[in-house]
Amino acid sequence: MSNKTRQRLDVEARRSQLLAVGSELFASRPYDDVWIDDVAERAGVSRGLLYHYFGNKRGFLHAVIERETQEILAATEPDPDVPAEERLRASIDGYLDYVVAHPHGYRAIFRGVVSSDARVRELVDANLRRQEARILDALSPGAPASPQLRLAVHGWLAFLVSVVLDWLDDPTVERSAIAELAIDALHALIATASG
Amino acid sequence: MSNKTRQRLDVEARRSQLLAVGSELFASRPYDDVWIDDVAERAGVSRGLLYHYFGNKRGFLHAVIERETQEILAATEPDPDVPAEERLRASIDGYLDYVVAHPHGYRAIFRGVVSSDARVRELVDANLRRQEARILDALSPGAPASPQLRLAVHGWLAFLVSVVLDWLDDPTVERSAIAELAIDALHALIATASG
Repeated sequence: MSNKTRQRLDVEARRSQLLAVGSELFASRPYDDVWIDDVAERAGVSRGLLYHYFGNKRGFLHAVIERETQEILAATEPDPDVPAEERLRASIDGYLDYVVAHPHGYRAIFRGVVSSDARVRELVDANLRRQEARILDALSPGAPASPQLRLAVHGWLAFLVSVVLDWLDDPTVERSAIAELAIDALHALIATASG
Repeated sequence: MSNKTRQRLDVEARRSQLLAVGSELFASRPYDDVWIDDVAERAGVSRGLLYHYFGNKRGFLHAVIERETQEILAATEPDPDVPAEERLRASIDGYLDYVVAHPHGYRAIFRGVVSSDARVRELVDANLRRQEARILDALSPGAPASPQLRLAVHGWLAFLVSVVLDWLDDPTVERSAIAELAIDALHALIATASG
């Protein structure tokens, strides 16, 4: 391995470690309570290195969210070997696991002070579009969906976010009932848009 | 009428005129393209008076949104004398009329740079809660709704906003089909949450 390659790997490992620390902090506290100094201390690096890699706290947040959207996609990745209904259930379960582990982060990107940040919206929208595409593709593989079906599936994702945010605020309803509601709602909305 | 009363009425009429001008500007342009000087010029008042009444541009925006949320509630006010199904259709029609007349304002409060402003969220959330209460009350007058039904109706409002935002971006689907989708989706989600 050349020196250059080793150096690049070192940088990537370090960056990834910093993002993991940021993910933990942003997921568990409001944005304004996360301090670059804290991140640096936990990661055992200088704050200068953080600024060097990410520019500023906003840049660091963007990098963390970019990583997190990949995590969400991975957590909800459908397994092509299981039947469609089971696949949907597994994706919803993965989604709820993710949300339960990152309540602050989830609230932050959908209704916190950073939710209207242009780059945050771009990342979140791209993620929703990816999930929408997955669902549409499962419904009619390879075929273009009708505009109504697209609207309904995109709208269902907004429905899901609303239900999950309400549930985080007031977890009266059992988690399994939230999963049922999400699954049944998707079927109902697809039927509505198709019929 | 005492001098004091007349003065108060003058102030209210002037404030209301300024809010009407603001509503027009915020509804038709992005937030950053609205200038207090423009508002003052259109209303024929000094910019000093605007600052005196509203503090700053953000304060003016909040006052405009407060007025607009009243407008939306009025535009969707159910007429108790018509049957439930017709009432729902009329409310959706009123809602779409409002949106078509205020595309920028609508986008702004749901995904623009001001959408994460704490006061804007408070006003928008209060408005959604009011609409949610209306629907729940129509479903079971006087009786408390189940937590699932609340989640579903609140989620439907998020669904509606998503569908309408998508539709503003790409008005391929006919307006009447958007209204159908919204109405059918509400029925489907209520059935889902109740069954």
